[in-house]
Amino acid sequence: MTDDVAPSGRVSRRRGRRDRAAPTGPRQKEPSRHRRPFDPVKAVSDDELEAIHHASLRVLRDIGIDLLHDGARQLLLDAGAELAPSASPERIVMDPDLVASLIATAPSEFTLHAPDPAWDQHIGGDSVVFTDVASAPNAFDVSTGRRTGRREDFRRFVKLSAVLNAVQLHGGYPVEPTDLHPSIRHLHATHDLLTLSPKGVGVYSLGRQRNLDGLEMIRIARGITEDQLEREPSANSVINASSPLRLDHPMAEGILQFSSRNQVIVFTPFTLAGAMAPVTLAGALVQQNAEALFGMALTQAVRPGAPVVYGGFTSNVDMQSGAPAFGTPEFMKAALVGGQLARRYGVPYRSSNVNAANAVDAQAGYESVFSLWGAIMGGANLVWHGAGWMEGGLQASFEKMVLDADLISMVATFLEPLVVDDASLAVEAIREVGPGGHFFGVQHTQDRYRDAFYSPMISDWRNYESWAEAGSPTALDRAGGLVEELLGQHQPPEMDPDRRAELDEFVARRVAEGGVETDF
Amino acid sequence: MTDDVAPSGRVSRRRGRRDRAAPTGPRQKEPSRHRRPFDPVKAVSDDELEAIHHASLRVLRDIGIDLLHDGARQLLLDAGAELAPSASPERIVMDPDLVASLIATAPSEFTLHAPDPAWDQHIGGDSVVFTDVASAPNAFDVSTGRRTGRREDFRRFVKLSAVLNAVQLHGGYPVEPTDLHPSIRHLHATHDLLTLSPKGVGVYSLGRQRNLDGLEMIRIARGITEDQLEREPSANSVINASSPLRLDHPMAEGILQFSSRNQVIVFTPFTLAGAMAPVTLAGALVQQNAEALFGMALTQAVRPGAPVVYGGFTSNVDMQSGAPAFGTPEFMKAALVGGQLARRYGVPYRSSNVNAANAVDAQAGYESVFSLWGAIMGGANLVWHGAGWMEGGLQASFEKMVLDADLISMVATFLEPLVVDDASLAVEAIREVGPGGHFFGVQHTQDRYRDAFYSPMISDWRNYESWAEAGSPTALDRAGGLVEELLGQHQPPEMDPDRRAELDEFVARRVAEGGVETDF
Repeated sequence: MTDDVAPSGRVSRRRGRRDRAAPTGPRQKEPSRHRRPFDPVKAVSDDELEAIHHASLRVLRDIGIDLLHDGARQLLLDAGAELAPSASPERIVMDPDLVASLIATAPSEFTLHAPDPAWDQHIGGDSVVFTDVASAPNAFDVSTGRRTGRREDFRRFVKLSAVLNAVQLHGGYPVEPTDLHPSIRHLHATHDLLTLSPKGVGVYSLGRQRNLDGLEMIRIARGITEDQLEREPSANSVINASSPLRLDHPMAEGILQFSSRNQVIVFTPFTLAGAMAPVTLAGALVQQNAEALFGMALTQAVRPGAPVVYGGFTSNVDMQSGAPAFGTPEFMKAALVGGQLARRYGVPYRSSNVNAANAVDAQAGYESVFSLWGAIMGGANLVWHGAGWMEGGLQASFEKMVLDADLISMVATFLEPLVVDDASLAVEAIREVGPGGHFFGVQHTQDRYRDAFYSPMISDWRNYESWAEAGSPTALDRAGGLVEELLGQHQPPEMDPDRRAELDEFVARRVAEGGVETDF
Repeated sequence: MTDDVAPSGRVSRRRGRRDRAAPTGPRQKEPSRHRRPFDPVKAVSDDELEAIHHASLRVLRDIGIDLLHDGARQLLLDAGAELAPSASPERIVMDPDLVASLIATAPSEFTLHAPDPAWDQHIGGDSVVFTDVASAPNAFDVSTGRRTGRREDFRRFVKLSAVLNAVQLHGGYPVEPTDLHPSIRHLHATHDLLTLSPKGVGVYSLGRQRNLDGLEMIRIARGITEDQLEREPSANSVINASSPLRLDHPMAEGILQFSSRNQVIVFTPFTLAGAMAPVTLAGALVQQNAEALFGMALTQAVRPGAPVVYGGFTSNVDMQSGAPAFGTPEFMKAALVGGQLARRYGVPYRSSNVNAANAVDAQAGYESVFSLWGAIMGGANLVWHGAGWMEGGLQASFEKMVLDADLISMVATFLEPLVVDDASLAVEAIREVGPGGHFFGVQHTQDRYRDAFYSPMISDWRNYESWAEAGSPTALDRAGGLVEELLGQHQPPEMDPDRRAELDEFVARRVAEGGVETDF
């Protein structure tokens, strides 16, 4: 176990930073390491889990995966995989024993390092880490409405994610900064992330050079050598299978670059039951698992021991329209089984806080919490898209990001162990108050009331009359009112001036060189 | 185990009824018995649970409960309880052994009978049953707004609850019909319930005669003898402790009347941490448990084996304003521990679907699902206020009732076992589609897509453009659009004409007699 994250140190650090600046704003829950205090919930029996596992192995042995990358294919062939007979020349099949021996080296837990060590995250075990939304093409706020993502929105989302204690890690770009040309987008976007936020960042696997640029910028920002970067995983990259049963070239290339340097791969098949996967949940999970095993095996073929996370993203579509759905009962069940599978293989597990709502309304609220329910009870170590995701991923919402930060903090409070000791059992306070009395005034209450309960940013508990008099604000209104206030609290993280100059210079040079050739 | 509920029979019965009438409307999930397929989640260790248990026993032995009912007090004294020395003359203390021996006879499960046997409910074990909202003083719908509850609203709520398959049992009056004089309100309200809905009903314990009238009307509606009524629990009554540590006269009287006739008591302390209970959750649970043990003991002193449900309702208040809060992280933890305690005593467990939102917005959505999360993972057998509750119980909302029916159906779908067999594992379908293909067209999908996933009434999964073109409806708008449509489907349940005449006559006679003396 690698557990060098010190929550107490982190808290005092943050407190110190806040005191220095003293900007006011909504009271947030202090950052802390969240640990699940109970066992995850099983949605299928151990025998049923084995049936899913073995069906996945049959898929890998008898059907195979199209791996559209020559080098990656050769690696697996060298490791003992074979080309599928009489199929496409890219199709790889693997024996169950080979799969088992390859994934055996994947670590069960590791530390994901951030530019500011206060935001290092322990991944695995009973830890739960939340990211912000990633990869939305559109941005939304109530005053401007919905628009294609631009760098200005991107920077505001990064600042808001940086301010929100509930966001512990960046999952990618909260919104695509589409006004940055694809050849240089990764340079400016990663520079923004590293100069606006102290938290760990992700790199998109869109070709070798982008991966190398991203890793180099993270190395510079952390002020470490390449050797240290290789010892200390500091970047994450989500790798999606192109379900069903295909791994595209840039995704495979990302695994080569990241795993060879001991950086974190979050391997996530995109298995929507009824569309890219079987309409039966068990079948969709078989396919998810086959693809995940394949991806994890590739990381270990590249470098045994490279950190990899099992990503579960199985949901269903609306069978009338084909529209993807999230936070459904089917999503919840798949989230539980995904966790069972990840634990079977002894690797960390990623799920998501997702919904398909178009507005921050009751649907957004219930689908999100259903997702969180599945993720948390399923034992997720990483909850991707934790804050700000809307519309099945097509929209990043400023208001939803604030609201989700509140939801995450509620979940984190729920995960805190319930204290049972003489003082909390409160028999003496019960005696003091006695039948028919009231607890407001007693010392037991006075000593504890300030921090006794989670104090939400959004929830409005006023009585109806006061609330109506205040203009009947909805949760969306209240979240909207906090966005600017929270953004006003943003301060760029401290960075050593030499590192900053090196980072600026790197970006300027690479931009001057034209960035990377655009292949799209 | 008493398990004479036949879901298949119930389904065909309902189908038959629907065919006869053929009113169209939103497609609902068919009624079914919901069973939790996984173990409940523990929020505290077994040792910590024992610490809470023993602290509760100390409260009962050393502090005591004010029992404001002479007859009930005498019953407990006869059973071995004592008057607390130098305290109020109503204060009862009980030894741990007495508590243990009394509650030992409470049944672990039973069937709660309904006027229509298709709606009989199994209470206990792994069964989960949902009621509608009960006891709200105000009614709300978007077109009229908020108003004091009247009989017209009451009848509409009963009809809507009757139509919604997700509501399996009535918890009381969804809204108070305040325009009915208190002396005769119970007669007309119970008549409305029994003639408008086929589902089991509750009786408020507001004095002996009201209890007796309610039981007699239920007996008439079921067309059974008093003996059969006594063999077959057919009515429920929620008994709240007046926390802290007090049981009022009408509540105690309700236990005497109900338990002596083998009817169902849902004993629910109202322990808001920081107000009527200690500010520490463990302390609030100690008090909840002491009160619940006391109430359960009284039911068994009245009649060993009388059905009683352990009600957990511990939540917290906003410590700034004192306002009650629901669906909070503290509520969730308390819901888990409440279930652990109920299972320790071998009795069914009741929790709730509650929130403190003033509008059907994201807050209403997330607080409700957080409540359901705590209730379901806590192993609740009865989820009270399952549909329609708003504003901490001060408002019954038509729109929320429809939305909650959707939430309940999603939870019910989540609880359905995931099918794992050769057909659902779908390896052949995966082979047929192959890498890069699509599952829409294959036979495996075609054979199953209609019923593969839960099809929600409310959730809007259209893409943003179509949704915006349709006027950007929120979940509240969509629920509102369904209220009249669902009410249009309502048909009074069939009732034997003789029974109906007897019921009408009973109410006419009791109303002519002036009902009951009003004590308020």
